[in-house]
Amino acid sequence: MGRWEPDAAGRLREAAMALYAERGFDGTTVAEIADRAGVTARTFFRHFADKREVLFAGSEQLQELMVKALAAAPAEATPMEATTIAVLASAEFFDDIRRDYSRRRAAVITSTPELLERELIKMASLTTALNQGLLERGVAPEVAALAAETGVAVFRVSFERWISAPGDVPIAELIHASLKTLSGLTA
Amino acid sequence: MGRWEPDAAGRLREAAMALYAERGFDGTTVAEIADRAGVTARTFFRHFADKREVLFAGSEQLQELMVKALAAAPAEATPMEATTIAVLASAEFFDDIRRDYSRRRAAVITSTPELLERELIKMASLTTALNQGLLERGVAPEVAALAAETGVAVFRVSFERWISAPGDVPIAELIHASLKTLSGLTA
Repeated sequence: MGRWEPDAAGRLREAAMALYAERGFDGTTVAEIADRAGVTARTFFRHFADKREVLFAGSEQLQELMVKALAAAPAEATPMEATTIAVLASAEFFDDIRRDYSRRRAAVITSTPELLERELIKMASLTTALNQGLLERGVAPEVAALAAETGVAVFRVSFERWISAPGDVPIAELIHASLKTLSGLTA
Repeated sequence: MGRWEPDAAGRLREAAMALYAERGFDGTTVAEIADRAGVTARTFFRHFADKREVLFAGSEQLQELMVKALAAAPAEATPMEATTIAVLASAEFFDDIRRDYSRRRAAVITSTPELLERELIKMASLTTALNQGLLERGVAPEVAALAAETGVAVFRVSFERWISAPGDVPIAELIHASLKTLSGLTA
């Protein structure tokens, strides 16, 4: 079980994930999620557009965090330094408290094609947002596109390691390791 | 108009793309595609599972080509060299004759969320296949994951430039340019 979340949105998220794990995504209704969370279906829809979005509200927060960090990077940062600052900002989101939730979420998503598709769309949206942020910093289009794609690639690989590794290595450490590997790869 | 394609699959592909451009993906039926291609709906289904797959049969060919090239890379190639060989194999597929088709296809896909999702899935599948191929070459998992993601990123960026650039720069040249940019970025 995850940490106790006092807010309705948090309870709905926990309830949805528990039910998806038990009965599968297709076998779960909004009414059941609301019921398990102790709220009405109306409350559910005040927080989420549908039963898929319950698991993706965090993606927008994450993207916002990374885009803000990118914009706040020092003007003299190179494109990859600025991208690295953005990717490292994810550590603020993926802290130790969130790891258990992230692991369980990943298990549900991996076993549900519809959720996996949605995850891919969110990653594509993140890439587009970072690309846009780099363009706004005056980075040349072909450099911005590559830096954004590479940044998201580093994030994905680091995140996968973060949830699959035993123990509690912070994601920032895995991001640094991935960047080092990448630099060696493309040298 | 694209080049003349004598086979039913090719005619169906051209017909589908013309109709999607004219009426939108949602406004087009399999019967209409078959009709325009001068074949029966039954023939359509002998070639494609549904009206979405008409535009994605090539993705499998492309993936096969790249995976084969990866497997055939010299044993002494570094992970990124092997990945580069795989990515460059796409030039065999994306030759000058295919460029016009690829441009029109991209326009249809970009304007249709359902097709855009499918395209993301195919790219994720390509990443997984390259990752797998690298693991089979004995590459360490974290290196394989990064090389595969990076290889697909380079492919995507180069492909985008290939279809959007005026003139007829070969995709191989753009791939080399992207790899050079990447190497400078992550140095």
